[in-house]
Amino acid sequence: MWRYDPPLRDMRFVIDEVLGAPARWAAMPAHAELDADMAAQVLEEAGRFASEILAPTNGPGDLQGCQWQDGAVTTPEGYRAAYQAFVDGGWPALACDPECGGQGLPQVLNSALFEMLAAANHGWTMYPGLLHGAYEVLHQHASGWLRETYLPKVTSGEWLSTMCLTEAHAGSDLGLLRTRAVPAEDGSYRLTGTKIFISGGDSDLTPNIVHLVLARLPEAPAGTKGLSLFLAPKFLPDGSRNAARCDGVEKKMGIKGSATCVMSFEGATGWLLGEPGKGLQAMFLMMNAARLHVGLQGLGHLEATTQNALRYTAERVQSRAPAKPEGAPAGAGGADFIVYHPAVRRQLWTLKARTESARVLSYWAAQALDEEAAHPDEAVRAAAGHRATLLTPVIKAMLTDLGHFSADRALGLWGGHGYIHEYGIEQIVRDSRIALIYEGTNEIQAIDLLLRKILPDGGQRLQGLLDWAAAQCEGSAHAGVARAGLQAVGEAVARLLAAQKADAELPFRAADDLLFALGEALLGAAWARMDAVAAQALAAGTGDSAFYAGKRQLAQLHFDWLGPELQHRLAAVAAARAPLPFLPAL
Amino acid sequence: MWRYDPPLRDMRFVIDEVLGAPARWAAMPAHAELDADMAAQVLEEAGRFASEILAPTNGPGDLQGCQWQDGAVTTPEGYRAAYQAFVDGGWPALACDPECGGQGLPQVLNSALFEMLAAANHGWTMYPGLLHGAYEVLHQHASGWLRETYLPKVTSGEWLSTMCLTEAHAGSDLGLLRTRAVPAEDGSYRLTGTKIFISGGDSDLTPNIVHLVLARLPEAPAGTKGLSLFLAPKFLPDGSRNAARCDGVEKKMGIKGSATCVMSFEGATGWLLGEPGKGLQAMFLMMNAARLHVGLQGLGHLEATTQNALRYTAERVQSRAPAKPEGAPAGAGGADFIVYHPAVRRQLWTLKARTESARVLSYWAAQALDEEAAHPDEAVRAAAGHRATLLTPVIKAMLTDLGHFSADRALGLWGGHGYIHEYGIEQIVRDSRIALIYEGTNEIQAIDLLLRKILPDGGQRLQGLLDWAAAQCEGSAHAGVARAGLQAVGEAVARLLAAQKADAELPFRAADDLLFALGEALLGAAWARMDAVAAQALAAGTGDSAFYAGKRQLAQLHFDWLGPELQHRLAAVAAARAPLPFLPAL
Repeated sequence: MWRYDPPLRDMRFVIDEVLGAPARWAAMPAHAELDADMAAQVLEEAGRFASEILAPTNGPGDLQGCQWQDGAVTTPEGYRAAYQAFVDGGWPALACDPECGGQGLPQVLNSALFEMLAAANHGWTMYPGLLHGAYEVLHQHASGWLRETYLPKVTSGEWLSTMCLTEAHAGSDLGLLRTRAVPAEDGSYRLTGTKIFISGGDSDLTPNIVHLVLARLPEAPAGTKGLSLFLAPKFLPDGSRNAARCDGVEKKMGIKGSATCVMSFEGATGWLLGEPGKGLQAMFLMMNAARLHVGLQGLGHLEATTQNALRYTAERVQSRAPAKPEGAPAGAGGADFIVYHPAVRRQLWTLKARTESARVLSYWAAQALDEEAAHPDEAVRAAAGHRATLLTPVIKAMLTDLGHFSADRALGLWGGHGYIHEYGIEQIVRDSRIALIYEGTNEIQAIDLLLRKILPDGGQRLQGLLDWAAAQCEGSAHAGVARAGLQAVGEAVARLLAAQKADAELPFRAADDLLFALGEALLGAAWARMDAVAAQALAAGTGDSAFYAGKRQLAQLHFDWLGPELQHRLAAVAAARAPLPFLPAL
Repeated sequence: MWRYDPPLRDMRFVIDEVLGAPARWAAMPAHAELDADMAAQVLEEAGRFASEILAPTNGPGDLQGCQWQDGAVTTPEGYRAAYQAFVDGGWPALACDPECGGQGLPQVLNSALFEMLAAANHGWTMYPGLLHGAYEVLHQHASGWLRETYLPKVTSGEWLSTMCLTEAHAGSDLGLLRTRAVPAEDGSYRLTGTKIFISGGDSDLTPNIVHLVLARLPEAPAGTKGLSLFLAPKFLPDGSRNAARCDGVEKKMGIKGSATCVMSFEGATGWLLGEPGKGLQAMFLMMNAARLHVGLQGLGHLEATTQNALRYTAERVQSRAPAKPEGAPAGAGGADFIVYHPAVRRQLWTLKARTESARVLSYWAAQALDEEAAHPDEAVRAAAGHRATLLTPVIKAMLTDLGHFSADRALGLWGGHGYIHEYGIEQIVRDSRIALIYEGTNEIQAIDLLLRKILPDGGQRLQGLLDWAAAQCEGSAHAGVARAGLQAVGEAVARLLAAQKADAELPFRAADDLLFALGEALLGAAWARMDAVAAQALAAGTGDSAFYAGKRQLAQLHFDWLGPELQHRLAAVAAARAPLPFLPAL
C-alpha cells in the first residue's frame, strides 16, 4: 500500500552532480565547511524522519482531521509526537543563522527536507511550513525584547507561527483588508478584526503561537500602503491569554490534518514589526520563501505519486499487454502486469520525467537563493538574485500544477481502487489542490512573472535566465532542441513586447501560457543538463552505469513525448492575440 | 451559493434547432406524436424536479454520506423522498417501451433528463442511473415469470437494480472473474462469490433490489467466454431474504451519497438471463447505454460548474482589472468584479464553449440511438448505428475528462473559498473524478475506439462519421476550419493504418490522443453547426437576437482560443511514433 521512500540517490544526483553544489559551497565562506558526505548524512536523517515518523500519520490524519472545541484545536493522533521529534532533531533551524541558534545550512538542503516532508504528509507540514518565513521576518524586523523573546523560539520551532493576511472579502487583494490596530499607551497595539484561512491559527503542537498580523493603523491610507505588520502571540509574555481566538476550522477538500482557522482578534495585544505602512513589504519576505516551499510541495506530490504508481502497476495484474519484455512472466489467469500496457508505461515515464526535472528546477532556485545570500562575488550574487526572482513564480505555479494534475491523472492507474481512501492517491489529489491557490494563486504568479518581472525591463533579466539555462545544456545530445525551446520563449516575449503597445491587455491574456512555456523550456534545459552529466559519468566509467543510462533514457523520453507540451504553450501564447470579450451580464 | 438552474433555453436550442429533432421525430412512427412543445414541457418538469427537489440534497448528502450497519445501507436524508418523487413522476420509464409500461419518449429527452440529474446530484443519480440498462437487459433477455415479475418493477423504478461485475482482482479484465453459479434442481442457480464497487448494492430507497450478476457455470471455460449473466434479487419472490448481502461500503473520494458496496453472494438464488456463456454480451447492452450516461454526467458537471462560476465571479470583488466594460461600476474599495479579469474571462468563456458543444455532441449521439432504434429507413438506421458506435467512446472519455478537469481548473475561480465544502465546487471536483474510471476507463474507451472500431475496417466507418460531421458545418463562417480539423483527424488515422504494419503497438500508444483529437474536431463541428443555425436565425430576424449573437460569439471564441487544443492532440498522435521502452524493474 501507499508509502514514502525518500529518493536519496536521485536527490544526491541533482545536488552533487547536476548542480555541482559541493564545489559551489566551497566558494562561499558561510558553507565552506559543508561537503557532499555531510550533506548526504543530513538527507539520510531527514529521509528517516519523513518516511518512518511522518509518513505513517498521513492517511490516518486525513481520516481523523482536526477537532475544534471552545476555541481550541486538537490535531490528529501522532501529529504532536512527530512535531516533537522534528523540533528535537533541530530541523526547523536547518537553514537559519547560526547566531540565532540555526545550523546555517544552505537552502538546497532545506529544500530537499521540505520536499520530503510534503511528500510524506502535506497536512502536517503546514504547521512548520511557515516557520522559516516567520524567522526571516523576525530576523530582519524584530529588535530588542521582541527579538529576544520570539526569534529563538521561532528559530527552534518551539513556538509555531502563523501568517494572518486573508479576510473574507480580501484574498488576492490585500488592499481591501480591514483589521485595525490602535496604539496603546505602553507602546503596544490593540488589534481588532477577523482573519480567515489561517493555517495553524490554533493547534496543540506547541505551547505558544506567534501570529504575524496585517492590520491598519488609525488614519492609515486605503489600499496596501496603509498596511502594517504586527506580532500578536497566543500567550502574552506575562503568561496571560491574548484576545486572539480561533472561532472555528474549515471543512476542506484536503490537508485535513492542517487546522485552517477563522481567527478573531478582539483588542488583542500586538507589537509593530518594521515601519508603519510597510507591512506588506515585510510580509513579502515571508511570502517569497513560502512560494518556493509551495513549489516544493508540488514536487513532493509528484515524487510520492510516481513511486507509488511504479510500485502498484508492477504488482497489479490485468488484461494482456500487446507486448512485454522478453522473458517476462504472465500474471495470474494469463493476464499481464499493468506496467507493460502502453498507456500505463506512457504515464509512468511522464511521471518520472516530470518529477526529476521538477527537482532540478527547484534546487536550481534554492541554489540561486544560497548564492544570492552568501556568495563573496557581488556579480554572482546579483545574477543569482535575478534567477531566483524569475524562477520563484515559475516553480510555484508550474510545480503545483504538475503536482496536482499529475496525481489526478495518475489516480486512474489504480482504476476504481484509486477512488478509495485506503489506496492513498485520492488523498494526494485532494491535498495537492490547495497549492495552486495559496501564497498567491497561480494566475497571480503568471501576472507577477510577465507583467512585473519580464516586461518592465524589456525582457533583459529573462534573457539572462535563458542564457544561463542554455549554458546548462552544454554537452547534451539534446542541447540543440533544448536551446531552441529557450530561444522560442525569448522570441514569444519579444513579440509580446512589440504587440503590447497597441493592446495593453494582451500580456494579461498571455501570462498563464507564457509562464508554462518558460517552465517547459526550463524543464527541457534540466533534462539536457542531466543528460550531459549522465553521458559524462558513463564515458568516465565511474560505475552505476544502469543509473546513468536510465537518466539518458528519461531525457530522450522527455523530448520525444513531452516536447509537444512546449509547442502547445507557445501556440496558446500566440492565440492570446485574439480578442477576449467581456461576458454578458447574467 | 451553489445552486442548479436547468439550462432549458440552451437545451431547446440544441434539440429543436441544432438537431432539428422535431422534424426527425415526425419521420419516426414511434415518436410521430411528439412535438417541440410537448418536449419542452417534459424538459421543464424534469428541470423542476432536478433543481427544486434533487439539487438541495446534494451538498448535505456529501457531508452525511451513506451509513452501513449489519448489512443494511441508509442513504442520506432527503434521498428517499427525492427517489419517491422521481418514481411518482414516471421518470424512470421515460424512454421505455410503452408495452412494458414506459412512455416511449426518445433518448434525446432522456439524455437531457440525465444531464440535469447528474448536474443536480451525481451521488443520488447513481441509484436510478443503472435502471435503463437493467431495463434493456430484461427487455431483451428475460422471459416468462422472470419477465413478468421483474421487468415492470424495473421499468417503473419501483425496484432498483445493480450491475455486479467487478471483483477485487478483476476490474478492467472481466475474464478473471471467479464468482460461480451452480445449477439447482428447480432450474435456478446458486451464486457464490464476492463482488466489489457495486453501486447501490444495498439501499433504503426501494423495497427490493434486482442484482444482475456475472458468474461462471461449472465447467465453463476460462476468460470472458465462460461468463453467464444471472438475476438475483435481494428478496426472493416468496418474500424471503436472498443470500446476497452488503458487507460494507467504501470510503470514497466523492459521490458519497452513493453506496458503493462489497457484495457477498453465499449460495444466493439466481436465474439465468440469456444463454450460458453469453453473459458479457448481455451485460454490454447495459454497458453501452451506461457509457452514454456517464458522458452525460461529465456534461452535467460542466453545466453546473459553468453556471455557478458565472454567478460567483459576477459578484466577487477583488483587485483592479486592466480593463472593464464601459460604464461598469467599481466594486467596494475600488476593486473590480473578478469577471472582468482576463484570466477569469478566459476560463469562463472556455467553460461556456466546452459545455455547449459537449451538449451538442451528447444529444447527437442520443439522436443517433433514436434513429437506429426507430427510423423506418434501413439505411438511416444503419448509418445512425455507426455514428452511435463511434460517438459513444468519444463522449464517455472526452466529456468525463472535460467535466472533471474543467471543474478542477474552475475551482481556482473561487480562490481559497473553492477549497471549502460550503462553496460547492470542491464536491463537483471529487464527484466527477469517478466518471473517468467506471464503465470502462477512459484509456479503455480509447483502445475500443481506435483498435476495435476504427482500424479494423480501414477507417471506413470513421470516414462516414467525419463526412457526416463535415456536412453539419454547412452555412457557418467557420466551416472551413472545422472541416480542416475533421480532415486532419482522418489523415492521422490513415498514417496510423500505414504505420501499424511495421509497429503493431503504435495504435495503443496513440489511442488516447487520437480519441481526444477526434473529440476536439467534433466539438469544432458542433460549434460550426451552432454558428450556422444562429446566423440563419439572425438573418431571418426571428427575435431573441442577443441569444443568437451570443452563440456566434462563442463559436468564434472556440476557434480562436481552443483551436490549439486540436493541433496539440494531433501533434501528440504524431509523437506517439517515438519508442516507449519498458520500465526498469523496481
